[in-house]
Amino acid sequence: MTTPTIKYGRPVTTDGVPNVYAGAPVVPWTPPEPGIDNLGISSVDTFAVPGVGEYTVEFKGWVRVVRSTPTSDEWSNAEVYTNLIEMKMVGECEELGRITVTLNPECLSAGQIRTPFDPYAGEGPSAKACRMAVGAIFDMPKLGLKLMNREPIILTIDDVRSIPPAGAPGKGQIYRMMPLYDINAADDEPIAYLTSLRFAMGGYLAPEQM
Amino acid sequence: MTTPTIKYGRPVTTDGVPNVYAGAPVVPWTPPEPGIDNLGISSVDTFAVPGVGEYTVEFKGWVRVVRSTPTSDEWSNAEVYTNLIEMKMVGECEELGRITVTLNPECLSAGQIRTPFDPYAGEGPSAKACRMAVGAIFDMPKLGLKLMNREPIILTIDDVRSIPPAGAPGKGQIYRMMPLYDINAADDEPIAYLTSLRFAMGGYLAPEQM
Repeated sequence: MTTPTIKYGRPVTTDGVPNVYAGAPVVPWTPPEPGIDNLGISSVDTFAVPGVGEYTVEFKGWVRVVRSTPTSDEWSNAEVYTNLIEMKMVGECEELGRITVTLNPECLSAGQIRTPFDPYAGEGPSAKACRMAVGAIFDMPKLGLKLMNREPIILTIDDVRSIPPAGAPGKGQIYRMMPLYDINAADDEPIAYLTSLRFAMGGYLAPEQM
Repeated sequence: MTTPTIKYGRPVTTDGVPNVYAGAPVVPWTPPEPGIDNLGISSVDTFAVPGVGEYTVEFKGWVRVVRSTPTSDEWSNAEVYTNLIEMKMVGECEELGRITVTLNPECLSAGQIRTPFDPYAGEGPSAKACRMAVGAIFDMPKLGLKLMNREPIILTIDDVRSIPPAGAPGKGQIYRMMPLYDINAADDEPIAYLTSLRFAMGGYLAPEQM
């Protein structure tokens, strides 16, 4: 395994942290013991290719997220740090072919769950905000391209009432466009842009579903 | 000068690129020759310090931005890549003391100006979108702290009608909170969060104003 040289947030240890699979409870308003969550995920991403077109692709797959020991036993004060340690999502469209999304091993994809400074009316009174900064690789064999982002994709989930926020919808915070580079010519101009990303966390998966 | 190990975008050469100072024209709808723009900047940033409070600070200072050769002579097709090569902004508030913001030399702060894929009604028909991903250091000597971001701060300017977009207002695309880490304990938990950032580009400065 490559050691990431680019850290998008705080590292979280996986040493001695147990895997959590299907059947494990998700308890609302309760900071959980550390764990490696094995969860389903789906996403709808839009790619803009300059001069060619815009393509919206539905992805399905799974993630593995390691969670730190909460900073407090009390939900309202607890902060939990997270690292996205594995991801595989697959989608397809006619023009771009099959696309497989995995983590960029050069990057530590990292995030956290904490009480927001700006709670809004639609959120429960003790709801938390979840964020994760992700470095990904989009493998597009039909085009012979592997694309990578150089600004992390910021995935956010609001109104978080349990950890993990299984079943919750989320958004990639992309302002207008996020450049994607050919991993083999990363200092050249961007090949494509991610212009929208909406996702939903699934529930715990069984090991054989990963 | 440190060679950045973390590149937030495409590198732009400074070799043989002339400095541009006060007195230089800014011509609308015209892709300019490459240059290093020496520009004023002001910003209003809000910092949240968990358990302590939220502080809004006005900054003033300057930036140096190198621009690439445009990819086309025609405004509507032209793309220009940019690197923020130097920055100094100073602000102050009672609780945090004097704050000096400079670039993080570990990061290549990079961006681009191009026609957006999602033009909106308020923009001129040929307006461009400007974005820059920035790694910064916030030096707070009163608190004995230097804070850094690990997700780049995405500075954006819309409705760009000239390059550089001198005088234009912009925004830091921060969703709820962006963690800031103690540069001497960057793997520990965040010390503070940037919760809002609004800025305005100034015009060209004279060398003695830098």
